[in-house]
Amino acid sequence: MPATPAWPPSSLPRLYVDQPLGEGASVTLESQQANYLGAVLRLGPGAQIKLFDDRSGEWLAEIVEAGKKRVTLRIVQQLREREAVPDLWLAFAPIKKGRIDWIAEKATELGVARLVPVITQRTIVDRLNGERLLAHMIEAAEQCERTALPELAEARKLDALLKDWPAGRTLYFADEMGGEPFAPAATPGPAAILIGPEGGFTDAERAAIRALPEARPVSLGPRILRADTAAVAAVSLWMGAAGDWTQSPRS
Amino acid sequence: MPATPAWPPSSLPRLYVDQPLGEGASVTLESQQANYLGAVLRLGPGAQIKLFDDRSGEWLAEIVEAGKKRVTLRIVQQLREREAVPDLWLAFAPIKKGRIDWIAEKATELGVARLVPVITQRTIVDRLNGERLLAHMIEAAEQCERTALPELAEARKLDALLKDWPAGRTLYFADEMGGEPFAPAATPGPAAILIGPEGGFTDAERAAIRALPEARPVSLGPRILRADTAAVAAVSLWMGAAGDWTQSPRS
Repeated sequence: MPATPAWPPSSLPRLYVDQPLGEGASVTLESQQANYLGAVLRLGPGAQIKLFDDRSGEWLAEIVEAGKKRVTLRIVQQLREREAVPDLWLAFAPIKKGRIDWIAEKATELGVARLVPVITQRTIVDRLNGERLLAHMIEAAEQCERTALPELAEARKLDALLKDWPAGRTLYFADEMGGEPFAPAATPGPAAILIGPEGGFTDAERAAIRALPEARPVSLGPRILRADTAAVAAVSLWMGAAGDWTQSPRS
Repeated sequence: MPATPAWPPSSLPRLYVDQPLGEGASVTLESQQANYLGAVLRLGPGAQIKLFDDRSGEWLAEIVEAGKKRVTLRIVQQLREREAVPDLWLAFAPIKKGRIDWIAEKATELGVARLVPVITQRTIVDRLNGERLLAHMIEAAEQCERTALPELAEARKLDALLKDWPAGRTLYFADEMGGEPFAPAATPGPAAILIGPEGGFTDAERAAIRALPEARPVSLGPRILRADTAAVAAVSLWMGAAGDWTQSPRS
């Protein structure tokens, strides 16, 4: 069974549910999702939609009962298994609403495995609305037919991130002060990309990052990139060189 | 004189003006720009800002007179020459406001030479607000210390784009039906990236594009990417492999 989505995308509605799905299982949707199916799309018994649970792939589901605030569905069959996700983390200093939502959305489309918000000295936004970020990630996954969501980690300070850094996971950090051209194919294996705040890292932070044996300072060219642009550019470069973008595209 | 911006970015305000600048020249700013300097930043005579004109680089300017609706400046000296811009065009089907603004902004940060809106059969948005797009491009260029703006071409239909295609300019198009992994280093020289609408190209359009000798269908991996994500990903991959991202970063 192919893990990649078919093209063109089916016109069936597609929703994420945070419960394990399986053949014959019953699913109850409430509030926003029920309203979407029942009131917005006006679907009723017999109508089919797709569901995914970030655990077991994508399933075809049929509406059994549709009320104003509740929709019950029956799982008919599995359509796809959960996709393989390249082992890339994206660690980023929170930036303002709108731009950070864009990072979360793009990271989800691009196949990042884990999003790690990191508070640095020059981070202006130190509170993160995890629920809103997750909602953006879910919407991107629903619309782009993904069967896996990135993990959204709790925000933590940079020194805590570095202290607990998993041995063997390469840490590429976009360093405005310079670094090697980003050539991730040279260092295979689990990786992470660290994008600093708009004001950059302090000298002490840069030294602390560079002190990690896994750290690799990289340059993303001679122009200044905003944090959200740098995040998408770096993830794309990694996916193209060390991720799964050399795979055959979907059938 | 270095063409790349110094790090950290100077805190001097930085504005684009659509007039040729030169040493000793006088510049008059009105309406929005005058209001920004005079009322928002409350700058007065003697204050210095940076100006660029997309022709001759970046210049240090000093305020001579500041009124509510008009600010006059004197050009003091040149700070940087106009940067070299990699020869990459980005052709894209217009998408809705917000997302298309992101594309214009990101393309400006990433160093695209020319933006070409292309109307395809499945393009939903067929009217383009060129002024608004240009405003986003200017803002990105001002904030990211660029001395060059991408050229913003008039929108045209796909068949017109293909009919007038300049010989020798490689046309990479992101094809959901498949293509080679995107490896632009293999084909040096002027290039363009074509991103279709959210609904994709029709079979006839795909055939017409592929009929161009310069056309190269490329895949951006096994996941579905929205048009704005695909645009930034593809431009980043080209810049990393065939653009100027292997240059030493800024001094």
